[in-house]
Amino acid sequence: MKIKLVLHVVALVQMFVGATMLLPLVCAWYCHEPEIVPFIQAMVLTIGVGAAVFLLTRSSEDIRVREGFGIVTLGWVAMAAFGSLPFLFSGAIPGLTDAYFETLSGFTTTGASILTEIESMPRSLLLWRSQTQWLGGMGIIVLSIAILPFLGVGGMQLFRAEVPGPTMDRLKPRISHTAGLLWAVYLLLTMLEILLLQLGGMDLLEAVNHSFTTMATGGFSTKNASIAHYQSPYIQYVIIFFMFMAGVSFSLHYRCLTGGRPGVYYRDREWVFYVTILGGATVAIYLSNLLGGQGYGEKAVRDSLFQVVSITTTTGYATADFDRWDSLSRVMLLALMFVGGCAGSTGGGMKVIRLLLILKHGKSEIKKLLHPRAIFLVKVKKIKIRPEVMLNVQGFFNLYIALFVFCTFLMAALGLDMISAASSVAATLGNIGPGLGAVGPMANFSEVPLLGKWVLNLCMLLGRLEIYTVIILFMPEVWKKY
Amino acid sequence: MKIKLVLHVVALVQMFVGATMLLPLVCAWYCHEPEIVPFIQAMVLTIGVGAAVFLLTRSSEDIRVREGFGIVTLGWVAMAAFGSLPFLFSGAIPGLTDAYFETLSGFTTTGASILTEIESMPRSLLLWRSQTQWLGGMGIIVLSIAILPFLGVGGMQLFRAEVPGPTMDRLKPRISHTAGLLWAVYLLLTMLEILLLQLGGMDLLEAVNHSFTTMATGGFSTKNASIAHYQSPYIQYVIIFFMFMAGVSFSLHYRCLTGGRPGVYYRDREWVFYVTILGGATVAIYLSNLLGGQGYGEKAVRDSLFQVVSITTTTGYATADFDRWDSLSRVMLLALMFVGGCAGSTGGGMKVIRLLLILKHGKSEIKKLLHPRAIFLVKVKKIKIRPEVMLNVQGFFNLYIALFVFCTFLMAALGLDMISAASSVAATLGNIGPGLGAVGPMANFSEVPLLGKWVLNLCMLLGRLEIYTVIILFMPEVWKKY
Repeated sequence: MKIKLVLHVVALVQMFVGATMLLPLVCAWYCHEPEIVPFIQAMVLTIGVGAAVFLLTRSSEDIRVREGFGIVTLGWVAMAAFGSLPFLFSGAIPGLTDAYFETLSGFTTTGASILTEIESMPRSLLLWRSQTQWLGGMGIIVLSIAILPFLGVGGMQLFRAEVPGPTMDRLKPRISHTAGLLWAVYLLLTMLEILLLQLGGMDLLEAVNHSFTTMATGGFSTKNASIAHYQSPYIQYVIIFFMFMAGVSFSLHYRCLTGGRPGVYYRDREWVFYVTILGGATVAIYLSNLLGGQGYGEKAVRDSLFQVVSITTTTGYATADFDRWDSLSRVMLLALMFVGGCAGSTGGGMKVIRLLLILKHGKSEIKKLLHPRAIFLVKVKKIKIRPEVMLNVQGFFNLYIALFVFCTFLMAALGLDMISAASSVAATLGNIGPGLGAVGPMANFSEVPLLGKWVLNLCMLLGRLEIYTVIILFMPEVWKKY
Repeated sequence: MKIKLVLHVVALVQMFVGATMLLPLVCAWYCHEPEIVPFIQAMVLTIGVGAAVFLLTRSSEDIRVREGFGIVTLGWVAMAAFGSLPFLFSGAIPGLTDAYFETLSGFTTTGASILTEIESMPRSLLLWRSQTQWLGGMGIIVLSIAILPFLGVGGMQLFRAEVPGPTMDRLKPRISHTAGLLWAVYLLLTMLEILLLQLGGMDLLEAVNHSFTTMATGGFSTKNASIAHYQSPYIQYVIIFFMFMAGVSFSLHYRCLTGGRPGVYYRDREWVFYVTILGGATVAIYLSNLLGGQGYGEKAVRDSLFQVVSITTTTGYATADFDRWDSLSRVMLLALMFVGGCAGSTGGGMKVIRLLLILKHGKSEIKKLLHPRAIFLVKVKKIKIRPEVMLNVQGFFNLYIALFVFCTFLMAALGLDMISAASSVAATLGNIGPGLGAVGPMANFSEVPLLGKWVLNLCMLLGRLEIYTVIILFMPEVWKKY
């Protein structure tokens, strides 16, 4: 690992993140909040350290695969560390663990919060909190569409062909070009949501906050009651729509916008499966709640739809305390936490395409039993999946399950009851946010023991960076001098 | 599918099962119980129907793979149907659903019971109940060592080389030869356990009952409190030892007995991993209970060891109400339900070897990230696992998880709380027996709603027959005329 090179790139990203603190700074100034000072301190420190490291590590070498892993992981860890400074300097979140948890939960677009009283927070800090998610979302789009396919993580190499922009061999020019295109789409959708929320009567700042955290499938809200605070069906439907859009691959959005053909969506097998899951789960949960006596009508349908879309896209907003729903609804929501968004979206989880592949693989295995000598290759999007790639996808699936089980052991050992332990891990590993039980939608993560918060920090990071990216850094070989 | 051929073989097995009803019949006569009549009725009906079908379906054709699946599945379904007759005729279990559940739970060596008051049952019926498990165990040994490897189910083809006896191409002669050898080992171990339990003061009938259900990793007990009834540490250790032995591949036992070298065990990677899991889980649960204030000393160690061995081998006996243990212990026991015994043992679950392969596969995937062009093949027992076989194993793993999730939905829809729903499915799919919550070790399955009992019946059957064997029968192609 060329550590200098890694630090060099991370420092560059850090300076950029530091510069974006200007937005909450302006907000603090505009709202006459005393948080102007902590924001200036945090900005100076973030950009200063970034610049120093950047200058000290000049390097013109090429980035190899292993440096790629280093940059991504260290990048997220550092962003969360420096991003937590405004919370610490202002005293809004006094503890180091809590501040780091909240900020990492932001940059990983998880949305798990340790705040017990959100509405009393200064508005500039709430904006920064939402902004960490939006920035995290930017990072994830580029990571999943332009970087991971080339690092060969968990079957993502399948999507090399889908990257918009020039296809060159070197990583650098491609990333910057692709990033520009995708961020334009991301920005456009965010602005559209801000506009539509304002039309529904939300004030500008709230609209910006919620658009930031919707498009990132983050789920931080500025209200204690999350989206349940807004009773307007219009606002809730707008948010449902944009959560849905954020869970779709941004390269599809890009192709739709440039080609002008909405057909790109329904010709995409992953998108169709994604819509099927959302539709099926909504119907099942609506019926289950209906039989459980939770009432019928538009509000009940909307509540089911909202929660299903929110959990599946791994946003984590709530319009109802789904932890009080019946057994089937809760089990289904817990299972949906594992699904996640489409590959190339800002959503977390295992990703719809992987589940689709695993399902198709199951079917081919059954066929194979009857015709042991025939060869059945799983096909998706007209591409035949070679056994090696299928094993790659399976490896990811196994690792995800193994981590879920192992971390649930840890959380249970720290004293959480079974459902809280399992759902806190599922909700952080999948970057959803709220879980069930003690970490349910109307509760928060403040009561989780200190060590547990660090376990969940690791879950958020692992889940967000597709597990392998982080785990590989624990192999001694990666650190060898070249 | 040559249905006549399938019926012919199943009828043969059925006549054999009917003939074994002689044992409880003798027991009823000896104990002066009025159940002599229902046993005679059941025997006549079972053997009579069997003989009629056998004579009407004479066939000299060869058994192909698809007939193999049909014979195995129909065999188990029919055994449970006719095996439930003594319970029905005697009126001991009046409902059809309950009687079938109890008997299928026997023949699949699950051990889930709907009986609320076991000790008041006639002794002959209890013996028959234990005997269904022992017979089921006989079936499973042959199935997993001599049949499934040749049907290519879930990676079991790996173990073709391990089958003792002559290696011919046709299925029939091999099965009967192998079956003879393995049953000798099974019988030997059962008799040894009967002897050792009697030495510990258990009366003959109890010793036979418990030896039958230990060696089958079944877990039916003749006592309401299961093995907790016997306070003697000696008896509990004897049972721990034989549960452990029953969870080891019988082809290993066979090789050890014939070769006289205990080295076959510790040179077997699966056996080593099995012992490691048992040891690790026992230590973790002991420590967790210790910190939870459950006391220390020999009794606490024994309780942890007993429960771990009982759940992992999928026996399902209990010496403690582990549902009242702390969160970590309960989560770990739930996870152990998925592990199961070694391939070729009477244990259920996913099987240790599959987990070992999946773990090794994960490691090779991480290595591959660093060397994308290199080829890493998972090796076990000096055999290189081809990607197709690894995918086969993975397919089984996926299907197991998918069934677990789907059936948990169904059980939750039927009104079970999350933990009871999930653990009832885990405990039947893995053929363990008791779960947690409403189906915990000191509770039983009598309160599960009618439909739920049929869902669990299906789980027991699917789990016991390695899933594929049953699922394949739902494919129209299998039923085509040849």
